[in-house]
Amino acid sequence: MRVDGSRLYERLMQMAQIGGTPKGGVCRVALTDEDKRGRELFVKWCREAGCSIHTDALGNIFARREGRDSSLPAVLIGSHLDSQPTGGKYDGVYGVLAGLEVIETLNRYEHLTDSPIEIVSWTNEEGARFTPAMIASGVFGGAFTLDYAYSRKDDQGKSLKEELGRIGFLGDDPVGAREYKASFEVHIEQGPVLEANDVPIGIVTGVQGIVWYELTIKGQETHAGPCPMSMRKDPVQGLVKALGAIYQLGAAHGEEARVTIGKLHAEPGVVNTVPGNLDLTIDLRHPSGEKLKQMQEGLNKIISDLERDTGLDFGLQQIWKADPVHFDSGCIEAVRQAVVELKLDAKEMVSGAGHDAVYVANKVPTSMIFIPCKDGLSHNEAEHADKEHIIAGADVLLHAVLKMAENTNK
Amino acid sequence: MRVDGSRLYERLMQMAQIGGTPKGGVCRVALTDEDKRGRELFVKWCREAGCSIHTDALGNIFARREGRDSSLPAVLIGSHLDSQPTGGKYDGVYGVLAGLEVIETLNRYEHLTDSPIEIVSWTNEEGARFTPAMIASGVFGGAFTLDYAYSRKDDQGKSLKEELGRIGFLGDDPVGAREYKASFEVHIEQGPVLEANDVPIGIVTGVQGIVWYELTIKGQETHAGPCPMSMRKDPVQGLVKALGAIYQLGAAHGEEARVTIGKLHAEPGVVNTVPGNLDLTIDLRHPSGEKLKQMQEGLNKIISDLERDTGLDFGLQQIWKADPVHFDSGCIEAVRQAVVELKLDAKEMVSGAGHDAVYVANKVPTSMIFIPCKDGLSHNEAEHADKEHIIAGADVLLHAVLKMAENTNK
Repeated sequence: MRVDGSRLYERLMQMAQIGGTPKGGVCRVALTDEDKRGRELFVKWCREAGCSIHTDALGNIFARREGRDSSLPAVLIGSHLDSQPTGGKYDGVYGVLAGLEVIETLNRYEHLTDSPIEIVSWTNEEGARFTPAMIASGVFGGAFTLDYAYSRKDDQGKSLKEELGRIGFLGDDPVGAREYKASFEVHIEQGPVLEANDVPIGIVTGVQGIVWYELTIKGQETHAGPCPMSMRKDPVQGLVKALGAIYQLGAAHGEEARVTIGKLHAEPGVVNTVPGNLDLTIDLRHPSGEKLKQMQEGLNKIISDLERDTGLDFGLQQIWKADPVHFDSGCIEAVRQAVVELKLDAKEMVSGAGHDAVYVANKVPTSMIFIPCKDGLSHNEAEHADKEHIIAGADVLLHAVLKMAENTNK
Repeated sequence: MRVDGSRLYERLMQMAQIGGTPKGGVCRVALTDEDKRGRELFVKWCREAGCSIHTDALGNIFARREGRDSSLPAVLIGSHLDSQPTGGKYDGVYGVLAGLEVIETLNRYEHLTDSPIEIVSWTNEEGARFTPAMIASGVFGGAFTLDYAYSRKDDQGKSLKEELGRIGFLGDDPVGAREYKASFEVHIEQGPVLEANDVPIGIVTGVQGIVWYELTIKGQETHAGPCPMSMRKDPVQGLVKALGAIYQLGAAHGEEARVTIGKLHAEPGVVNTVPGNLDLTIDLRHPSGEKLKQMQEGLNKIISDLERDTGLDFGLQQIWKADPVHFDSGCIEAVRQAVVELKLDAKEMVSGAGHDAVYVANKVPTSMIFIPCKDGLSHNEAEHADKEHIIAGADVLLHAVLKMAENTNK
């Protein structure tokens, strides 16, 4: 059994027209008119494929194809239709339309699964308009309350609930009431690893743990001329030592460790003044909870050593932490087998980015499938995935779903 | 012969009332009502000391005490009365009032010098309201035209000429027409060297040469998770290497070299995104023109090596250069002899900051005298100088002036 790659690709291109940008990207931000039109097109296609539509109180859309035994929990496939303001054609929407293509393929082959199958499109995955990201799958997975999600406001002060109502997707179903046997999300990698290894499929076994820190380095604001180097309290000199040690710390924790300095700003920021103050952020990641903890301990030691040795004042504050996610072994195994059956090359890997699947995994056995994207680019109008990879990912999804949708108790 | 330290100190404190701030600093920004009041008080004191007042077309005030031979070029003493918006009691005003105290002392001792003596207060030294700094001494020294200075506007769009007229200090004398035999400026050090060495007097032999650069490091904006460290184009990693090498470059050029990274900013500045772009400034200083040139060559090599080795795109642009200033050997020698006669400790040094004396030195044999300031702090309401140092500096000024005001041809 194989998906119809042409249909899938054409639908991706058709959906990309909604909010399409001159540079070839997509601007279909959550709960805008474009999001409404995207949702309506998706619902239309699902209805045409014979699915029933169920919208919950957060606008999450579930399109259901019944199984042989409709009392069994369904297998869930999905991702999100919203995009970044200057997003691409594939992030999220590929996972939703690949789900639809699985159902279209089952229809074409007139194949009835034991369990029902549902496609989901989660509301506001990107967090570009309403923070935090993945808010609706987060409520589904128990990470946030419904009231919290409803109260989130955009820059203009419009609430998420208000905007859900405005676009006509404030449904009646309670969020998180639906039960599932398994869940899969297929997604572009949003990184360069598959492309660099020339491998079409990533078997995603989990998601990196993440810790965010804010670091302030305080010195003494000084005129660039009169004060000799040896008498300065220059936070930039402290920064060079700190960052050198922090990058080494990352390297010492192996290829899977990540160290990112995202924000970096000097105050007052005058060409002839030694800054009094530096503010930066540190993002540490590792798929192993143990190693992530070691990295955190290493960072604390680096900072306390520098505070002792440099005479500068280092203020390190942890602002957020997400533990590593380990996906369900049954779901991972279903993907592995699908890859073997389809005779595809694949690489086991850990996702570096968050996805709806992270929160769904709180409640439902879950795993993910990645396909390569050009230059690792995502959240970018130039985002691109090859048609052959798009088809391969959907075929793997189809076969993994088929395995999980069989009633092994019959 | 000694100055009257109490009078000098009291006048400094009295002048500090004009624009005095609750934190003990001064806000007497150029061509404001406070500056007008400060100028008027200075003029009143000078008239009481028997001086004639001459105001030029840039509001520079010259207070003249005739000499035995009024056809001889005068010896000039001065600095500026304007302050930073949150400035201190000593920056500039000390040099002006020490000049007045020299004349008061000559009056008290009924000592007539061969050459006339003039005190000057230069307009808008700080550049806090009208850029650039030292604009009026700059026109005097031929660095800027009068029209350029007149056309400079403050944030409210008021021109320097307009504001000079408003406060009543738009004089008739052409700028730069007056001729001088020698010029001295006594000033707080605005750095920590004299205090750290416990020396009351700095014999200033020149001013550091300065080069300013803007450096942009371009990498590839990437999500903090998916991309392995080895595949990133992370400009922050390039920054660590660049700054490490640039600080080493400074150290290799001796104690007199200065390296300052004043501005430093990462774009887009998001905690979970590897920055695409870093912008920073580099301020290099050295009193030796030759060594400064070597530092510039070293910087160019560091950047081109890193561009070759890191795959990042480094854009280095020189935005300003001021050659080192070497003060007049005769004036320096006069200060040296004054220090010996007064049995004071002194240190020969180079100024790291710009002063009116830099531009005056273009036309007139010039040197400077420094006194310590607490913690090297200046441009700060907490700026402080000890009374004994204030007096010592004025005594050195007096004796240096006495030497230069003698007609050695008689």
